[in-house]
Amino acid sequence: MITALAGGVGAARFLQGLVNVVPEKDITVIVNTGDDIELYGLHISPDLDIIMYTLADIVDEEKGWGIRGDTFRCLDMLKRYGHETWFNLGDKDFATHIYRTHLLKKGLHLSEVTKRLCQKLGLELNILPMTDDRFETKVVTVAGTMHFQEYLVKRRAQDEVIDVTFEGVEKARPAPGVVDSILSSDAIIICPSNPIVSIGTILSVKDIKSALEEAEAKVAGISPIVGGSPIKGPADKLMRGLGLEVSAYAVADLYRTFLDTFVIDQVDRAEKERIEGLGLNVVTTNTIMRDLKDKVHLARVTLRSVGVR
Amino acid sequence: MITALAGGVGAARFLQGLVNVVPEKDITVIVNTGDDIELYGLHISPDLDIIMYTLADIVDEEKGWGIRGDTFRCLDMLKRYGHETWFNLGDKDFATHIYRTHLLKKGLHLSEVTKRLCQKLGLELNILPMTDDRFETKVVTVAGTMHFQEYLVKRRAQDEVIDVTFEGVEKARPAPGVVDSILSSDAIIICPSNPIVSIGTILSVKDIKSALEEAEAKVAGISPIVGGSPIKGPADKLMRGLGLEVSAYAVADLYRTFLDTFVIDQVDRAEKERIEGLGLNVVTTNTIMRDLKDKVHLARVTLRSVGVR
Repeated sequence: MITALAGGVGAARFLQGLVNVVPEKDITVIVNTGDDIELYGLHISPDLDIIMYTLADIVDEEKGWGIRGDTFRCLDMLKRYGHETWFNLGDKDFATHIYRTHLLKKGLHLSEVTKRLCQKLGLELNILPMTDDRFETKVVTVAGTMHFQEYLVKRRAQDEVIDVTFEGVEKARPAPGVVDSILSSDAIIICPSNPIVSIGTILSVKDIKSALEEAEAKVAGISPIVGGSPIKGPADKLMRGLGLEVSAYAVADLYRTFLDTFVIDQVDRAEKERIEGLGLNVVTTNTIMRDLKDKVHLARVTLRSVGVR
Repeated sequence: MITALAGGVGAARFLQGLVNVVPEKDITVIVNTGDDIELYGLHISPDLDIIMYTLADIVDEEKGWGIRGDTFRCLDMLKRYGHETWFNLGDKDFATHIYRTHLLKKGLHLSEVTKRLCQKLGLELNILPMTDDRFETKVVTVAGTMHFQEYLVKRRAQDEVIDVTFEGVEKARPAPGVVDSILSSDAIIICPSNPIVSIGTILSVKDIKSALEEAEAKVAGISPIVGGSPIKGPADKLMRGLGLEVSAYAVADLYRTFLDTFVIDQVDRAEKERIEGLGLNVVTTNTIMRDLKDKVHLARVTLRSVGVR
């Protein structure tokens, strides 16, 4: 059994490789829900959706979100009604949010809803939201405090970051199965996701970080920072805003209390020694996932680094 | 000022004629909400939508519901998620229900939401739901009691009708402006709509029927029954189930306490005397609305019958 901690696009690409190496049913993915947002009265879970759509092979890989070949008629009409439509949602994508919101309103937990959506999409992985509780990542910027999606999508990550806060973190509890899967895994993988607003959010939920620290399984992480910048997303701006160095080393340092191995890109091999100085094994390889072959390669290298296969 | 009581398709077609004779801003339409239903967690108001879409000239006239040229991707995806999808909704149509539900959840009343939707669709008519309160038309059939939409759409009006009940009728109050518009109108028109589940529902809301009876303005109705059957919809099955004759006369009889004039189709001229026996004026004309000319003609004849123009 493998457990992976995941954000959105980067994690989804890595998991596409992983499911080609390990049977889907042996994989549990714990997904960030700090990006979740209510828009148009609907509960949207961007990272859960990217993971689900990618593994169900219906994702729009070019856009990096939404469903391949989707249209935007519903959104066009919402625009006509004067609703703000800075968060793009396709017509099929809307169905996910409508159905999720409908089931949540009926009293189901997000983890139960996610399970049902995964089943219907034909997925055998166990995809878990990090928490069933309300949890909102807020970015404190020079232009004010705003929801992470507003910072990223509406304002295109243009505002200088002062801090990142997690609303609801005091009350949030891990979703059922999250801590168990960590404690009973044969290997744990921290996907190449944003260390602040994807993995950082998951680690902030009570009991998750300590479970990782206590887990018997080896823990491998893959650096989302390559050559001093993120492959995708605003990790650099957020890390810098929090006074962190933007490097593989800085990410390893954030994870060092539970990490055994850190997989970094070969362009960052100069950082190897410094990261080893944190008491971690370091593996250097190509971490840029251009095609399925790259993804499978990275999955194999990562698994091997924690003694699987 | 003209006030019209309206159901769905038949009323919408009549109103298309009326707005060509009377300025939109001088018309108030009181619309049946007994058909309203929550599906996919969204508040759907079929009659309000048909009226709005028709007058905004975006209705799918062939289908008789929804928006012209709409696609069904969202519904297809809901089907994939295993949600029952017997109630067809197009992608643009979904935007109406999403936005309505969103505003209702924010605490706005249905009448306020309707006003906002109408403004955005460029309508100058004053379209009012009959009530802002919960009101559900249930059909009691040999196959059980069900929501009117379930009876009509899901089960295609195939079940023998025993009774029709209005859930919420005891507590429902007219929406703001409904009684005022009736009492201050220069003329009142009962559109050619189902006398049981479209007009009958409106009349059942406390104070509306008595306002019609007290109104100084003349009241004209147009028969939805032509030659012993409805132009569209299940009025015959419902009337028969309630032990009523399916005829223009029977409709006139239901309305006689507030009606001054009843407009019937020329094919029903044999019923003229019988209806006059109820103390009503009767006008016979062509009431089948095939094109705009027919609609305008019927609007003119109806208005003339109550002394307008």
